[in-house]
Amino acid sequence: MTKIKMSNQHENGGGNGNEFVERRRASLERYLNRTAQHPVLVVDPDFREFLESDVELPKATNTSALSGAGVMRLFNKVGETVNKITYKMDETDPWFEDKLIHIESLETQLRKLHTNVENMVIYRRELANLTNGVSRSAAMLSACEDHNSLSKALSHLADTEEKVEALHLEQANTDFFILCELLKDYLGLLSAVRDAFHERTKLFQHWHHAQQMLAKKRETKTKYELACRTDKLDQAATEVLEWEAKVERGQENFDKISKMIKMEMERFEKCRIKDFKAMFIKYLENHLEHQAQLVKYWENFLPAAESIA
Amino acid sequence: MTKIKMSNQHENGGGNGNEFVERRRASLERYLNRTAQHPVLVVDPDFREFLESDVELPKATNTSALSGAGVMRLFNKVGETVNKITYKMDETDPWFEDKLIHIESLETQLRKLHTNVENMVIYRRELANLTNGVSRSAAMLSACEDHNSLSKALSHLADTEEKVEALHLEQANTDFFILCELLKDYLGLLSAVRDAFHERTKLFQHWHHAQQMLAKKRETKTKYELACRTDKLDQAATEVLEWEAKVERGQENFDKISKMIKMEMERFEKCRIKDFKAMFIKYLENHLEHQAQLVKYWENFLPAAESIA
Repeated sequence: MTKIKMSNQHENGGGNGNEFVERRRASLERYLNRTAQHPVLVVDPDFREFLESDVELPKATNTSALSGAGVMRLFNKVGETVNKITYKMDETDPWFEDKLIHIESLETQLRKLHTNVENMVIYRRELANLTNGVSRSAAMLSACEDHNSLSKALSHLADTEEKVEALHLEQANTDFFILCELLKDYLGLLSAVRDAFHERTKLFQHWHHAQQMLAKKRETKTKYELACRTDKLDQAATEVLEWEAKVERGQENFDKISKMIKMEMERFEKCRIKDFKAMFIKYLENHLEHQAQLVKYWENFLPAAESIA
Repeated sequence: MTKIKMSNQHENGGGNGNEFVERRRASLERYLNRTAQHPVLVVDPDFREFLESDVELPKATNTSALSGAGVMRLFNKVGETVNKITYKMDETDPWFEDKLIHIESLETQLRKLHTNVENMVIYRRELANLTNGVSRSAAMLSACEDHNSLSKALSHLADTEEKVEALHLEQANTDFFILCELLKDYLGLLSAVRDAFHERTKLFQHWHHAQQMLAKKRETKTKYELACRTDKLDQAATEVLEWEAKVERGQENFDKISKMIKMEMERFEKCRIKDFKAMFIKYLENHLEHQAQLVKYWENFLPAAESIA
């Protein structure tokens, strides 16, 4: 996903170009950190080379032709091909069935939460803008207020609302960069988990295809044996051996991916819990800090209000 | 203004009927309190009768025919009549000129502040709705989360966001009923002050009109004297006396309203400063209370986040 060049940044950034770039930068940083935390990927030579490379990165000229619609067409094509070779797999291990149901329901609920948090961020930003309007009009009212201490209090209100505006923006950023972006990352990761489960289904199908082919080849060999067709028997025996090896490799691959997925899922679950815990604590700390700051702002305003005479 | 029956409450209430009624009730309560605080109006027999009346108030059947457009037509008509008899008054007292400029600029800035605060209230209410969405989706995510302590933390997040939602609504109400409605009342009061100033201008015009008439009547009397028209002289002398009395009454009325306005303005300014001071302090106390409450909510959430394992 990190390779897809965004064709329309405003659609995705929800703001100006700078905001989009900052959002993208933070997202790529998290991607690199995740990769570096994985025991296999961290020793991957390509990853190391990318991190240690001193030369400037080449421009992504090949991807520039990929429009949003083009990417979707590509995805749909891949999807169709996959669908054609997909048939109902007889699951032998209930662990996978349970896990997939869990992953899919988590994804559905995470997506809803993500949308709701995103909307909250948009409205908090808008609230900050409106608070700025209140601050500006309080300042203007203060300027044309004859009564000295009331004018001072209005000017103090203007200052306070300006600080509150900045805090609303910070709160929006906390909601966005801490909560919203983690949810977005996990939506991507859960989708990658589903992809891994799908790969296992494909390997199961390859293995079963090999079994069917082996059965056919054995039938052919038996037929030649009964017909005493020694001229064809050698070829048939070789093919049986070939498909026996394929079946064996197919089963090996399937067992290997099943084991690997269980192992990786264990790691993924640990990371997920750890990430959510860290997110919650950081989110809380930020909000507590903002609230404390707000209390201070309003408290500072109190003397100005009380000295109106 | 309190007599105008609203033809379309949704247009003015911005919400459902109950909200409109509550807003109107609070507005009328403030109107009665203001009236009761005025040294002259508090002893007014109509006001006392209204307050002490035991019988049910009659239905406002006469006003039901006043549509919004009808009211506007009425206002425009009155406006035209006033404009016709208005001409530039030579102000003899700079106090009135300065005061009117001040009142008008205050009104302009108050109106801007009022609009901005009103918009802020709308967005804070919307933010509360969106927070409710976050709460609900966090609760649903919690329900399908297998990991026990993470599920508990998500459920705690849902509870916290629900409380935050209620607090956002309370903050919106603070902004609205304390800040926004005071501004609205003062927009009405400043407009009443301008009306009083306008009444003074009208009395000035009546007085000058009487002076002009007296000059004419004296001219007529002199003409009759020179022409020895004793038959008309008595009538002319009576009219001169009449207009002399009218001039005197005109000047008296003008002096009285000028003095009264200065006295009332002094009272109005004192009330204004007192009201704004009381508003600021109540507003601050409310906001401080809300912020302290929010800090408590987030602090209560902290143990749930820390016990994720």
